[in-house]
Amino acid sequence: MSEMNGARALVRTLVDSKVDVCFSNPGTSEMHFVAALDDVPEMRGVLALFEGVATGAADGFARMADRPAATLLHLGPGLGNGLANLHNARKGNVPVVNIVGDHATYHTRYDAQLQSDIVSVASNVSSWIRTSQKPGDTGRDAAEAVAAAIGPPGQVATLILPADACWLEGGVVAAPIAPKAPADVAGDTIDEIAKILQSGEPAGLLLGGSNLRKPALMEAARVCEKSGALFLSETFPTRLERGPGLPEPARLPYLAEFAMAQLDGLKHLILVGTKSPVSFFAYPNKPSDLVPEGCTVHTLATISDDGVTALANLADALGAPREVKGLQAAARPGRPTGGLTADAVAQAVGALLPEGAVVCDEANTSGLTIPAHTAGSAPHDWLCLTGGAIGIGPALATGAAIACPDRKVVSLEADGSALYTIQALWTQAREGLDVKTIIFNNRSYSILNMELDRVGAGAGGPKAKQMLDLSGPDMDFVAIANGFGVPASRAESADDIANQLERALAEPGPALIEAIVDPMF
Amino acid sequence: MSEMNGARALVRTLVDSKVDVCFSNPGTSEMHFVAALDDVPEMRGVLALFEGVATGAADGFARMADRPAATLLHLGPGLGNGLANLHNARKGNVPVVNIVGDHATYHTRYDAQLQSDIVSVASNVSSWIRTSQKPGDTGRDAAEAVAAAIGPPGQVATLILPADACWLEGGVVAAPIAPKAPADVAGDTIDEIAKILQSGEPAGLLLGGSNLRKPALMEAARVCEKSGALFLSETFPTRLERGPGLPEPARLPYLAEFAMAQLDGLKHLILVGTKSPVSFFAYPNKPSDLVPEGCTVHTLATISDDGVTALANLADALGAPREVKGLQAAARPGRPTGGLTADAVAQAVGALLPEGAVVCDEANTSGLTIPAHTAGSAPHDWLCLTGGAIGIGPALATGAAIACPDRKVVSLEADGSALYTIQALWTQAREGLDVKTIIFNNRSYSILNMELDRVGAGAGGPKAKQMLDLSGPDMDFVAIANGFGVPASRAESADDIANQLERALAEPGPALIEAIVDPMF
Repeated sequence: MSEMNGARALVRTLVDSKVDVCFSNPGTSEMHFVAALDDVPEMRGVLALFEGVATGAADGFARMADRPAATLLHLGPGLGNGLANLHNARKGNVPVVNIVGDHATYHTRYDAQLQSDIVSVASNVSSWIRTSQKPGDTGRDAAEAVAAAIGPPGQVATLILPADACWLEGGVVAAPIAPKAPADVAGDTIDEIAKILQSGEPAGLLLGGSNLRKPALMEAARVCEKSGALFLSETFPTRLERGPGLPEPARLPYLAEFAMAQLDGLKHLILVGTKSPVSFFAYPNKPSDLVPEGCTVHTLATISDDGVTALANLADALGAPREVKGLQAAARPGRPTGGLTADAVAQAVGALLPEGAVVCDEANTSGLTIPAHTAGSAPHDWLCLTGGAIGIGPALATGAAIACPDRKVVSLEADGSALYTIQALWTQAREGLDVKTIIFNNRSYSILNMELDRVGAGAGGPKAKQMLDLSGPDMDFVAIANGFGVPASRAESADDIANQLERALAEPGPALIEAIVDPMF
Repeated sequence: MSEMNGARALVRTLVDSKVDVCFSNPGTSEMHFVAALDDVPEMRGVLALFEGVATGAADGFARMADRPAATLLHLGPGLGNGLANLHNARKGNVPVVNIVGDHATYHTRYDAQLQSDIVSVASNVSSWIRTSQKPGDTGRDAAEAVAAAIGPPGQVATLILPADACWLEGGVVAAPIAPKAPADVAGDTIDEIAKILQSGEPAGLLLGGSNLRKPALMEAARVCEKSGALFLSETFPTRLERGPGLPEPARLPYLAEFAMAQLDGLKHLILVGTKSPVSFFAYPNKPSDLVPEGCTVHTLATISDDGVTALANLADALGAPREVKGLQAAARPGRPTGGLTADAVAQAVGALLPEGAVVCDEANTSGLTIPAHTAGSAPHDWLCLTGGAIGIGPALATGAAIACPDRKVVSLEADGSALYTIQALWTQAREGLDVKTIIFNNRSYSILNMELDRVGAGAGGPKAKQMLDLSGPDMDFVAIANGFGVPASRAESADDIANQLERALAEPGPALIEAIVDPMF
């Protein structure tokens, strides 16, 4: 084998392990990794202007490509900037391989400006952390990082890469590690749950993780149609396949009181690749646990199990027919007319959503009616904010578009959330990504106006209100988008939004529409 | 005492402890803190659209106000977003009091979406971390957090605030804790160092921390003028007072080879409130430790010591006259003419810098000649990037302007760095801050083009070069600034920059000038 430094061995190993996109915001300590991009032509480097864009894009990529991307981050502060979206990936069980450059091993003890405890930051989000101590380790460590990220379940793996482990010769390319298959669910478990569903007691089937895609949804619908169990989805799906020809589970509402109403009266809640439902936040004198009293929680499949086969076996055990009756029919809302409201935007999206679209949904309070308006539009994928750390949308859309060059990405974005990773627009422009962003600009952290009251802090005085208000000055997202190289327009009527969305969808490349709407709260 | 919840006790205690500005990006778990802003009129809430703006602003505020500000951050991801600029504060020994909201204590065990290990993230940057377990603790913990932040040395203190410790009654306001005085330097130390300086062996005096402000600079100049020691400043001062009537130490260069050349031949290096100089990054076959062989390092004063008195005592021990000869004379460069270069921008800044300006310097490679052009302009303060985590400038300027409403802030900003916390422009607009930002737009991570070669990774192939290139598309900072509500203009000639800067300085409120310049590397 010819001479090879640690960086090149690492990049080559990543590519051999099918990690061939790297969302990057490099610094000096990552220069050998960057240089290696030219030695390994299969690796695609995608530059982000901010690390939260890189990590959120890696999340969006993995959700749609079913394999992890890498990120390239600059020491502890770079990882810190990427942390919020890694938190979201962790909560969504999405595989991500972080490469965090570090000082050369011998330089650490000098406590130079960028020295910090990277492991402590990484531990907040990573199920797997390792530091490559020498060039001979980078290949092996990269292969193991990829395997750890893939799981199951998918998780965040962080490989810390000292500069000298990169630049020294002695790199060794490692063979890819065969991914582990999800675990089989025992026949006893299936029989036990079949008995519960046959008992006639009210039950619900709550799906999450990869069980919100067509194969699992079809089997789960068989189970629910045969048994009468409620067909439920977790509140914020990592990836939900929707549209005509698919059965659609009811999503558990974000607001605890509505979720409790939905679960009220159940005697059994059966989990498939998700956790028992809890309140997003705590509220004074309200329970954190959303499971009704007297309801028993059962697990058919954990996030690491083969939920599809378990559901199929359960359906068969119940004697459910192969055919599913409750499939979503094709049906689009008409184009909206009149004044512009969040609902009119939702209607326009429903009227125009293209087949195979990937919808990134961080519309928050403005997005309440979008699921209803899009249910019958055309088959599409729906990606949610899985970990509650707002600011993933523009980044998520960027990664999804890299993963799916032949599909259109529709990014539904709240104004407040958009501002955390707005720099993603530039990457969309540079890479020519087919992302259509709609900013719901209600000039407010609208959800906090609602939450202020819900947590018992009252209506809020003028100073409190100012902390939730995004006017004064009003932001101009058309100008901001143009500044990042993305064509943009402003919609102020229902006709505007429909016409502008239609035009944007007809052309390739990124576009942004700023929809001026009133806050819902 | 009337009833009071934990949040109100906390805010009242902060104000009593002279922490009366809170840079905030709140969420649901912080709503009671936000509501308490109206109960405690002395506390000023300043909304940031991104947490890195809040933490960088807290840093800028403390550097100029000589007392800490608070930040209000939303759980682990909010702290993560603020981490890079907290890293900078930590490295600069700048006091910051973080208030990080958390789930209610009893909600933690449900592992809801936003649950994460906040302490592990905080430990990367914080010298003091505590979680207030109940409302009766919040006042005491706030007072102790402020005391810890003040030090000496200044440091980052992080108070984690569960929602129920905020919303429950039983809050108790705590009395402020008297700040600790810096430690006195022993007479023996001063005598020993006086002897070294009297030995005739080549010596240098390296100043850092608060020893770069007038009182210490004057005493240090006495020492250097009497002894012949080199008068040196650390590379990236937290706050350097400069201008006519002040002695100006030579700043140790960023590039290790230049720093080593500057220190070459020294037999003694005397530290005053700084650490022994090390290379910013490691480079193959270059030393990390910049102290020349055969040079002994001595500490006159640590960062926690009273450097001013130590320097005065040292000067007296040497028999130095009270008067300092080498004071900077008043001298401004002429207004630049011709094409626009980074140097022409520097010249315009030197020609027009107002008296009492606060200069936030994150111009990086484009800023090489600014210090020389501004040395004699007018007395001003110079704030640097202390921790190497780029992306502090717009935030730092925001905080400095809040601290100094009667002074003009000049924010010198590299295009690449500006994009990490560009959202700060909106806060500048909302608060009507007198910040004049100059973006050196060279459409490149210029420093990385230099570093790529310096670390031995060669010139870089086309894929590597693309990771360092910020063109394609070119960013339009005028549009971006306008989008955030800040008036802006583009300078494409030397006349442009001088005229536009003059106009911006003549009017109150924020303004941004985008200077189109070539990369230096």
